[in-house]
Formats: sequence, C-alpha cells, structure tokens
Amino acid sequence: MTESRGLRVVGVTVTPIAVADPPLLTAIGVHQPYALRAIVQVHTDAGITGISEAYGDDPTLDRLHRAIPEIIGLDAFDTNGLVSRVSAALAGITPDTPTELVGVASIEKAIAATVAAFEVALLDIQGKATGRRVCDLLGGAARDRVPFSAYLFYKWAGHPGAEPDRFGATLDTDGIVAQARTLVGQYGFGSLKLKGGVRPPDEEIEAVEALRDAFPDHPIRLDPNGNWTVKTSLHVAHRLAGVLEYLEDPTDGIAGMAAVAERTSIPLATNMCVTTFADLPDAIAARAVQIVLSDHHFWGGLRASLDLAAICATFGLGLSMHSNTHLGISLAAMTHLAAATPNLTYACDTHSPWKVEEVIEPGAIAIRDGAANLPTGLGLGVTLDEDAVARLHEQYERCGIRRRDDSIGMRAVDPSWTGARPRF
Amino acid sequence: MTESRGLRVVGVTVTPIAVADPPLLTAIGVHQPYALRAIVQVHTDAGITGISEAYGDDPTLDRLHRAIPEIIGLDAFDTNGLVSRVSAALAGITPDTPTELVGVASIEKAIAATVAAFEVALLDIQGKATGRRVCDLLGGAARDRVPFSAYLFYKWAGHPGAEPDRFGATLDTDGIVAQARTLVGQYGFGSLKLKGGVRPPDEEIEAVEALRDAFPDHPIRLDPNGNWTVKTSLHVAHRLAGVLEYLEDPTDGIAGMAAVAERTSIPLATNMCVTTFADLPDAIAARAVQIVLSDHHFWGGLRASLDLAAICATFGLGLSMHSNTHLGISLAAMTHLAAATPNLTYACDTHSPWKVEEVIEPGAIAIRDGAANLPTGLGLGVTLDEDAVARLHEQYERCGIRRRDDSIGMRAVDPSWTGARPRF
Repeated sequence: MTESRGLRVVGVTVTPIAVADPPLLTAIGVHQPYALRAIVQVHTDAGITGISEAYGDDPTLDRLHRAIPEIIGLDAFDTNGLVSRVSAALAGITPDTPTELVGVASIEKAIAATVAAFEVALLDIQGKATGRRVCDLLGGAARDRVPFSAYLFYKWAGHPGAEPDRFGATLDTDGIVAQARTLVGQYGFGSLKLKGGVRPPDEEIEAVEALRDAFPDHPIRLDPNGNWTVKTSLHVAHRLAGVLEYLEDPTDGIAGMAAVAERTSIPLATNMCVTTFADLPDAIAARAVQIVLSDHHFWGGLRASLDLAAICATFGLGLSMHSNTHLGISLAAMTHLAAATPNLTYACDTHSPWKVEEVIEPGAIAIRDGAANLPTGLGLGVTLDEDAVARLHEQYERCGIRRRDDSIGMRAVDPSWTGARPRF
Repeated sequence: MTESRGLRVVGVTVTPIAVADPPLLTAIGVHQPYALRAIVQVHTDAGITGISEAYGDDPTLDRLHRAIPEIIGLDAFDTNGLVSRVSAALAGITPDTPTELVGVASIEKAIAATVAAFEVALLDIQGKATGRRVCDLLGGAARDRVPFSAYLFYKWAGHPGAEPDRFGATLDTDGIVAQARTLVGQYGFGSLKLKGGVRPPDEEIEAVEALRDAFPDHPIRLDPNGNWTVKTSLHVAHRLAGVLEYLEDPTDGIAGMAAVAERTSIPLATNMCVTTFADLPDAIAARAVQIVLSDHHFWGGLRASLDLAAICATFGLGLSMHSNTHLGISLAAMTHLAAATPNLTYACDTHSPWKVEEVIEPGAIAIRDGAANLPTGLGLGVTLDEDAVARLHEQYERCGIRRRDDSIGMRAVDPSWTGARPRF
C-alpha cells in the first residue's frame, strides 16, 4: 500500500519540437510554417515517467532549464513544493510571453507557465503510481466526454512561397461557412468559434450571420483578439446581439472591456485581459468580463485551473477553455481538466483539427461527435511516440524558428505590417 | 499499479457520540455538559475504511443519513460526484446550523457540511489506498508542523449543579492570564485567542492588555462572536489598536463589519459573516473583512477549503482557521489541510486543550511547542479507538442532548437569558 511513497524526481528531459502549422490568420498576422512546442518528460526514482507539453519558444525553454536543477529530488505529489522551487528559480528573470495573444507578460505568468509544464507531468506520474486517471486526482470526472468547438480561421492557401496546404484558402464568408461544414462534418462539433480581428469587422459580422444561417442550432463565438476599438466593439456587439454565444476579447484591457460590457447584452469572454489571478479582482470589480477562458498552460497547471474555476463559480463568472496550438498530450490534459471541472459548461477551444503531426501514439483520445473521450489509461492516459518526438525535434533543429512571431509571414506580403492593435 | 481502481463505497457508519465539555462561556451562553460529534466511517469494496468527524446534532445526523443511500457505489476519488449526489439528496431540506456561532443557516451550508463529513473520509481512503498522506493528496506539505493558538475562555468552575471540573473557574482578568500561562506552559502555544463577547467590553479590553503585558511577544486575537454593536466594536478597536493581531467578528453581518473595518487599523477576521462561497463577493466588495477563518467542516471539505484559500490569495485576504469543539480525527484533518495551504499563515484555532475524551488511539498527533505534528501514517494518519467510540456513543445515548444550545445552562442561573445579540 505504500508503493507511491518515495516518488522522487531524478531527472527531466525537455525536447523542443516544431510541428507544421498552416497559415492561419490572426489579429497580429499569420501563423508561421512551424509552431514550437516542448515535450517535457519527468523521470522518478520509481522508474515512472510523466509527460507534459509546453510552449517551445526560447524564453520558455530557458525557464524550464532554469527550473530543472531545483526540482530534482522533489516528491511527485508535492505541487506546493514545485511552485515554491520554480518561483525561487525564476526570481529576477525578465518576463516575456510566447505570444501577445495571451495578454501582457509578467513574472507571475512566467512562473505559472513553468509550474504548469512540470505539474501536468507530476500528475501523470501520480496517476501512473496510484492506478488512477488524472481526472480522478482532480476530484473525479463530472463528464465522460468533453465538448470542443470548431475553431474557424481565415487562412491563406499556403505559406508565402510554399505550395497550398491540404486545407486550402479561406478568405471570405463563403470560405468560412465551407470550412465550418468541413470541420463539423469531420468532427461533429456542436459549436463554432471564428477567429476574428482579421477582416474588416463588417465582413466578420457577415461571416457570423452566414454561420448562423447555415448552423441555426450551433452556439457561435467570435474572437478578434483585442483588435477593435471600444467603438468598433460596440458596433459589432450591436449587430450580433442575440446571435453570438459570447464575444471574446473584442478590445484590449480591463477598462476597454468594461466599457463594452456595460453597453451590450452579449456576454464578453477573455483570455487576454484576465490571464493571471492578479487580474481577477480588478476585472470583477469593473464587471469587465462575464466568462473567463482558462488555460492550464499559463494559469499554473491543472490544480491552479481548478482554483480559477472555483473563483468563477464564486463570483458568478462563466468558464470556458482557451487553446493555443497544441498536440495530443495537451489535448489529454485539457480533457482531464475539463472533465473534472463541473462548472466548465462551455465547449472548449482546440487547434487539434489544424495539426497534421502528432507526438502521442494513436487511439487513446480523439474528437468525435464534437467531444473528446476521456482516456482510460493511467495518468493522462496517452503514450509518447518517441520516434515522432525525434523526428519533430529534427524539424525544430532545421526550421530555424525559435519563437512565435505572427508578423513575419505577413510582412512577406505587406512590408509595412506591424501587427499593432487595435487595427479596426 | 492499478490497486486503487474499483474503490467503491459499499457502506457508511455514522455513530453519534457525546464528549464531556467544560462550561466555557460564549456570547450566546455556556457550553453544555456534553458536546456532540458524529464519527463517520466510510467502507469500500477494497476493504479500506476512511474516517471523519462531523457535528453530531440531530439536523446534521439527519442529513448524513439522507445522503448515505446516494453515495453507495461512489468511487472514493470522485469528490465531484459526492457534491452532486449530496446536493441531490438534500434538495428541499430545511436549512439549519449546528450553532449560530458559525453564521446563518442556508441550504448551501447544509450541503457543504454534509459533503465535508464524507469528503474527509474519502481522502483518508485515497491516502490509504495510494500509500500517501492526505496532505500529499492536497498538493503537498508546505510545512511539517502546524501552529495552533491557545484558545482562552471565561468559564465557570463547573456546570450548574455539578462539581467543579479539572480546569476550574476563569471569571476575570487574572483568571484569563492564569489560564493563558497554563495553556502556554502545557502546549507551548505561540499565540493567544480570547473568546470574548462574554464580559462587558471594558473588562475584555483589560484582559487583552493584561495578556499583552504577560506575553509581550505573543500575537493576541479577540473574538466576541458578533456580540457588540458597531459603536462598541469601534470603542474596543480604538483601545486595542496596535495590541491585537486581529479582531474577529466584533459585530454581526457584512454591513456592520464593513462599518467597523472602515474606521480601524486592526484587521478584522470572520467565521460568522463569511461562511460560504456565496458570502465572498459582497464581503470583498464592501471590504468588510481582512482575514477569513476557514473551517473544512462547513466550507465543504478539505478541497473546498483550498478553493477558499485560493480566493483569499487572489483577493489579498488573510487566511486563518476556525475551530468548533472537535476531537483527534478533525485535528488531523485540520493539520493536513493547514500543512497543504501555503497562505494559511496565521496560527489555527483549536478546542483540543478543553477535551478530556478522545476517539483516536494516542501517539499519532499532538500539540507541542505550539504546533501539531503532521501524522506520518497513511491517509489522515490516525486510528479510531473503537472502544472509545462505543463508550462515547453510550454517553450520547444517556446524556439526552441532541443539539447544541448554549442558552440552556445560562438559563439555569438566569431565567431571563435569551442569548440575543448584540448584548453590548
């Protein structure tokens, strides 16, 4: 009965990888040909290894490597110790974020992201050591299947100078509706999310209205990533009242969001103006948002995301889940977390359909009928495909990309592009 | 590696007990000769039994018994399922509280208390099944020893009509200082808490000042359980500014506490006006309190208390821990919880020194040098003394007390006593 005692961390492997990414258009530009991730493997003296997936940009890798010496010897159950050790290891670093699309940089957020990268692996270890799924360790599965939304993007046919990709171009309303039909047909998604802030707002309004006509029963959300002024936000909100499930980050900052929230009936959601616990008191006092999108990658891990869920439940805020480009390890972590969060009642976001490469062995988790199944194996319930990791690490070495910069691709076609927001 | 799967609840035993309780004086009267507790034993198909300790009054017992049929078959890790099943079982009950000293009754609080009674036992099971301490399951021990405060009471020498008890009378300032010397001498407590609201406020001020003189380095807190008006509260606060560590529930309700908080530099603490998650938004908006006393017995269990801790950390509130009369199982649960809560930086309250009867086997946990050791055994790390439970259950059957009523003893000496607050 004591087999999980003495579960000490004896080593950590961090493998940066690059995965092919289509030219998805965003408020700040276009996805680069490769997205970076880090595969984290935490090894214990019991021979059990836990896995996790994190951002793979240079600042993230630097922080992970700074923390590793501090967490050697850590008990795999001691996530409080993980927080204090990582906090000590990162004291005095320069804050930075993997992408400005998840809000401003802070030391708090850098620590939280680093903690998260290890915490997921520790929970994977705990599950493997105790014969349990990660969702069990988080309080039990409130649901067996976790709904995800179809993440719709305007996109080019291919990256500048490259052949068209398998997804083809999506540059207008008809294209968005066609893309939605493809994703809903393929995955059964029951709700739709349009990444906005790309085309002029009236075009995006038109796209949402066309989606509404084509999918009368699908909740629809629109996310321009803070690329609108308050005035533009209110114009869109006025046009789409009664149409949108929620409007996500129409404009930047708590004050701007509060100004929009005050004058629209559409619930406002955010993963940009509330991205750390420190942001919550002001946002709540200002009634700036009605829904917070959690993201274990930068909120500090799965347990910290449950803390966020408790705060949302207490203060009457809705809870949804944000996605950055991710692979199957994170999909499993997100699914376990969502399953164990009773008040996560919105469908989660995921970039999964846009990924053509993977690091886990197939079969454990998939999105079907609009929802991901909860893996049945121990811990996260997914197994690393070591060959795939090696191949994608080689791709990382070759590709030369070391941090996300959505402006590079855009400047290839528009040398004056700055990505400065608000653009509309 | 899969031994903890299939850990299903197959039965629950609830044994009400009565433990001798000295005539401690409170804002609403005097403790009765016996305090009621319920010993909860949750049995699983793996042969592992978890234990817990709850209130033992009739309404609490009724709720526990209503919930038992619903939790048969529950997986011991599924605390989310516990909440939903208990919530369903208690829908429509009449809310009631074991004592008005923990705030107003609500369905939410009745559900939380019932969940807590089972959740602690489930965590005990989880620990025993996985070879882990409860503190490990809560995120790891941030401290190995948990400081508690000396809980000082005005008290009679004995219950009306009975012989004096071993503690003797404490009816004035000299008595309070002598009692403090006894408790500090015996347990090494490093901080002091005076249960006030009993004597006229100027006498209690005098007692605090005498404690300050006698123990110049001990933080001192004063708790009149809402027995003062706002005016009296401000009078005391003015006199004791710079002397008290915190002033606990000087007056009733969020509005009253906010009125006091606005005009004193002494931090205000509460376990009466903020006792459920639903109380937090208004209290925070009104800046009514600076410190919340958690209590897993009515906040919904150990995990829910961590949620409260996260909210306190997020909103800049201090966190302390409340005590009602309890025995060793709850002391262990409180100690595991406090150890796993990094921001629980105040010494916890405990009634332990006032208890002369016990239900756990000796040796696993004790308060020495002002702090409780973290039990080293699996789960809670304490073992039920079945003979003691049987003996105390017989005492319950004999004593005739079925719910706490501090006014009864007081009416024996003052027939006009109502216990109505504020009395000063």
